[in-house]
Amino acid sequence: MEHLREELDELNRQLLEMSSLVVDSITQSVNAAVNRDGDAASTVFQNENQINRLEIQIDNLAFQLLALQQPVAVDLRFVTMSMKINNNLERMGDIAVNIAQRALSLLSMGPMTPEVDIAYMAQIAQDMITDSINAFIHRDPELAEAVLKSDDAVDNLRDRMYNDVLKFMEADPQMIHPGIDYIFIARGLERLADHSTNIAEDVLFFVRGIDVRHHAAQI
Amino acid sequence: MEHLREELDELNRQLLEMSSLVVDSITQSVNAAVNRDGDAASTVFQNENQINRLEIQIDNLAFQLLALQQPVAVDLRFVTMSMKINNNLERMGDIAVNIAQRALSLLSMGPMTPEVDIAYMAQIAQDMITDSINAFIHRDPELAEAVLKSDDAVDNLRDRMYNDVLKFMEADPQMIHPGIDYIFIARGLERLADHSTNIAEDVLFFVRGIDVRHHAAQI
Repeated sequence: MEHLREELDELNRQLLEMSSLVVDSITQSVNAAVNRDGDAASTVFQNENQINRLEIQIDNLAFQLLALQQPVAVDLRFVTMSMKINNNLERMGDIAVNIAQRALSLLSMGPMTPEVDIAYMAQIAQDMITDSINAFIHRDPELAEAVLKSDDAVDNLRDRMYNDVLKFMEADPQMIHPGIDYIFIARGLERLADHSTNIAEDVLFFVRGIDVRHHAAQI
Repeated sequence: MEHLREELDELNRQLLEMSSLVVDSITQSVNAAVNRDGDAASTVFQNENQINRLEIQIDNLAFQLLALQQPVAVDLRFVTMSMKINNNLERMGDIAVNIAQRALSLLSMGPMTPEVDIAYMAQIAQDMITDSINAFIHRDPELAEAVLKSDDAVDNLRDRMYNDVLKFMEADPQMIHPGIDYIFIARGLERLADHSTNIAEDVLFFVRGIDVRHHAAQI
């Protein structure tokens, strides 16, 4: 039992390390895209290997825990939540890499000033990410619920951005290539928001034992 | 023990049902995009709710199995593999919905004949999907390994397609909107291939107990 507690603490510790790496990658990828910062993109690529290694390490620890300690009740919910959050975090790290690649592609095209405001959309997505991870760290269901409510805002901003980008692409063929980069960055931010929603749902299941995915409660 | 066996069989049965629905959605979404078939897109939207319900059902069954039966060894690996494959399949269903939406957007723009060959890329991605699911159904590690080898082919085809699309977008502003739809369809196919790779990796971990993600064996 002592041993179980230690391993659960270790699992929690590794997930916090993973969260902090992934948040760093996302912050740097957004910096790269919004502030045209090439060094920030490099940090994202450097983090990637470590995130991939940690994902496997956490997954193996969770599996060993299930196999050898056979946790029950809240401990079992914690382990299965950890496996899911781990998987979401790894994908978020991949998305940060995609955003950083698009940021470098934009940088390589030299200075341009298209009328695309990604900073605001990026801020909302980043807030969702931080809140979902804080909801996990502090086991805070209210914060998790707040994350679920923000998802529509990101989708609306994405639609507006698509329309802006489409307009400037149609006005100037030179803007087509950078426009596609912007569209993929917006898509990346949208998917980061989706993963934050997934994490928030997992936290709610863990804290309350209620499954809120796809309005499961109403089915 | 008898009860454990029954529940494992039930978990397997539900995963097969989920697989078959998701493969149907992917096939219909590709039909919608390649053959400009609007009815096929409708089928994808109809499948979505059922896929979401099944995801939750399978996840709950797997969790109950862990909680009440405390499976060990190969049975535990089967349950954790099921949770992961279930998650991958649900995301693949979402991607099929995205592809179907882009196909409808293309349809709404009337007849066009851009020089974009998505049929071949779609075929390779679909083969990977079917193979990864068959590798799971028949617990076939050779087939799973074949899936891992196909991933580069899809990435190469995607790069070629991006370049083709970029060219016709630059030549004719009318092609910008449909071009973006094609780019997202290619991106969807690429992500479907990635999920097939994930499933193949999970099958290899299940059959051989070896983790092949991110070349984990070499770390």
